[in-house]
Amino acid sequence: MATCNIGLIGAGTVGGGVIKIFNTQKSFYQNKLGLSLVFKRIADKNTGLFNDLPVGEAICSENADDILSDEEIQIVVELVGGTTFARELVLQSLSKGKHVVTANKALIAEHGHEIFETAEENNVSVFFEAAVGGGMPVIKTIRESLLGNDIISVRTIINGTCNYILTQMSERAAEFNDVLQEAQKNGYAEADPTLDIGGGDTGHKLAILASLLYGGYAPFEKIYIEGITHITAEDIALAKSLGYCIKLLGIIKQNPTAPSTIDVRVHPCMLHTEHILASVSDVFNAVSIQGDAVGHILLYGKGAGEMPTASSVMGDIIDIARNITEGSPRRIPMDFYSAAHELAITPMASITTRYFLRFSVVDKPKVLAAITTVLGNHGISLASVMQKERSTGEFVPVIMITHEANENNLQKAIAEIERQDFIRRKTRIIRIED
Amino acid sequence: MATCNIGLIGAGTVGGGVIKIFNTQKSFYQNKLGLSLVFKRIADKNTGLFNDLPVGEAICSENADDILSDEEIQIVVELVGGTTFARELVLQSLSKGKHVVTANKALIAEHGHEIFETAEENNVSVFFEAAVGGGMPVIKTIRESLLGNDIISVRTIINGTCNYILTQMSERAAEFNDVLQEAQKNGYAEADPTLDIGGGDTGHKLAILASLLYGGYAPFEKIYIEGITHITAEDIALAKSLGYCIKLLGIIKQNPTAPSTIDVRVHPCMLHTEHILASVSDVFNAVSIQGDAVGHILLYGKGAGEMPTASSVMGDIIDIARNITEGSPRRIPMDFYSAAHELAITPMASITTRYFLRFSVVDKPKVLAAITTVLGNHGISLASVMQKERSTGEFVPVIMITHEANENNLQKAIAEIERQDFIRRKTRIIRIED
Repeated sequence: MATCNIGLIGAGTVGGGVIKIFNTQKSFYQNKLGLSLVFKRIADKNTGLFNDLPVGEAICSENADDILSDEEIQIVVELVGGTTFARELVLQSLSKGKHVVTANKALIAEHGHEIFETAEENNVSVFFEAAVGGGMPVIKTIRESLLGNDIISVRTIINGTCNYILTQMSERAAEFNDVLQEAQKNGYAEADPTLDIGGGDTGHKLAILASLLYGGYAPFEKIYIEGITHITAEDIALAKSLGYCIKLLGIIKQNPTAPSTIDVRVHPCMLHTEHILASVSDVFNAVSIQGDAVGHILLYGKGAGEMPTASSVMGDIIDIARNITEGSPRRIPMDFYSAAHELAITPMASITTRYFLRFSVVDKPKVLAAITTVLGNHGISLASVMQKERSTGEFVPVIMITHEANENNLQKAIAEIERQDFIRRKTRIIRIED
Repeated sequence: MATCNIGLIGAGTVGGGVIKIFNTQKSFYQNKLGLSLVFKRIADKNTGLFNDLPVGEAICSENADDILSDEEIQIVVELVGGTTFARELVLQSLSKGKHVVTANKALIAEHGHEIFETAEENNVSVFFEAAVGGGMPVIKTIRESLLGNDIISVRTIINGTCNYILTQMSERAAEFNDVLQEAQKNGYAEADPTLDIGGGDTGHKLAILASLLYGGYAPFEKIYIEGITHITAEDIALAKSLGYCIKLLGIIKQNPTAPSTIDVRVHPCMLHTEHILASVSDVFNAVSIQGDAVGHILLYGKGAGEMPTASSVMGDIIDIARNITEGSPRRIPMDFYSAAHELAITPMASITTRYFLRFSVVDKPKVLAAITTVLGNHGISLASVMQKERSTGEFVPVIMITHEANENNLQKAIAEIERQDFIRRKTRIIRIED
């Protein structure tokens, strides 16, 4: 039985999880799968980490070059994170004919085209299941299982921090900042949570999924990204009273009104409480995929954390080891994600969806008529209107839910309405997803 | 680009779906995946089916032998169903060095060991994603993605007919036979529904999953199977009043009290309405998998039907075509499912679970004391007791929910209680799943 030698760069949380899994499953891989895997070298700048890890016979060093220059190492597992040093490591590994496994979504989203071209040139693979959805097999399902489908839409909850915060805000009628601080204490949010709560992390994952789904490079910088920092307990309470919840969704959709473009967008959404994604709570993630043949399928699980992420990394290692052992190192083509073919992402102004609108108005006659007239002039028709009683004494909330409308028309209408003297606060706009 | 020639045996519903998908996706497979697939021959005894199918250039015949004897055909897709003719077809195909794709769960469950041995001997593969969970990638997830996990438990709703019937009974407070007849009219139940409503179909799928999960042959005939025909609208209403619903579950579990055995069982279960499987309604299926690393993950989707099933069959065809094209025809080892290693299935008498018990008693003093004494004597302790008011005048229902108890002890206690003269009807026993 030929041996596959693995080098692990980054011995932090996820790296530690991978080593733990390997120690538990090693004899299963050998005896049942016929795969002889060896973690030959482990590198981390923080050499103190090696003390806490059951590294077995692996050669530990603080220098990643020890792994890159070891000609016996066939698979490099990159778990250092970031997009600078990690990018160099991955490109160098590929150039030296080593396969790469990574959990680094920012790296794949922002430098994927360069990485996959280098893999192509060197006849090796890059696997990255853990980059999207942690322990859920999202990438494999898209790249392998659903190839009999034209994918119509993908709706995702793929940031555990945001989902935890929104769930807690809803359950305890708490404000964003209070829950965020708590989440930071509990380890559910980073010390610098910007990438999560600002929606960038969800955007990275969407860029990867869109590229795989539609066979082209989805430029991250063209994805519309709106985070959850502006969502208030009042928004959530209002949504609840209408039978909705608020979730941060990552959405990919074939655009029916502009068939050559794909919607790729991240923003808070109102979902009816009976929507299957409405029941995805706290740090759980879910990906709902609609294919023309398979209909709706859903994957659900923990999208982050040491062991779920390590589970996916180990699945990738085995996939590559099988390919190496069986002599098919490039079994899954990498040109799926090609710089030569850039996807046309629908400009946000061209999307259509339903909207929840909350106006704050002075309580005087004809205000409702004035708002609905402007909306009507922009081709926006209303599904329902609700005027709440005065709450703070100063202004009155007016809630409207629209039928399908064009984003550009809606934004123009809102701008026109906000120029009126009866408007007291910025209008809250939350898109509704069916 | 080398061509993979495919022979399709069985041009019914699913076969038709596969041809439709192929016609839609053919150029994508060729241009994006680099796979040249040809449906060279299609066979069906009912040659009238060919008229309704866009069979393209395929050579159609009524004789499956035309496919078996065509040396150019590398992949045989068996969609005839049943376990007699289908078994012969599959074994002959494998013996002639052809790979096989099948959606036939009964065939794999009952003859899997023979089929996989023949595949092994002839260095070819058998893929069967569509056999469990229709369009959901259950098999691939277990065989590939989750190999970094020791699987602790799998809970499944994998029979759409049963789930449809139980959902409708619950929503409309209707009785089993009425809903079954309706389901037959609507095409959600077969003319002979025995295999579905009796639990056998779920059992077939469990046998396959258990074999894959624990690397041995799970003998179908040793699986405890209890269907849903005895469930009444009253059971469901009582369950609802306690915050539960009733679902037919297929359960696979490492048995903590008998570590060398695996629980593999099919029976109606009460699930708390907040349980993630409780929200799986109508013909939808779901598979909830708990791994030591990944935690809980769930796959959800349509478990049957023309196009979802065809989607999985096409995924398998591409998997095999990739293996053939890349020169790794045996990439996924087949000895997973080995007759040489029979799994030890926990005898039903040895399982432990919680129970819902409904006694029908004559309303007289000391009945409750008599029942609880017998239960206590058998080591069964109660979590809650509810005595309903007399409903029909003749007898009174007494509801009990137990803590974890041993099945053998429970059955003995119930037998002893039923010998008492205050018992008026057979006691209803429904296991509770957490």
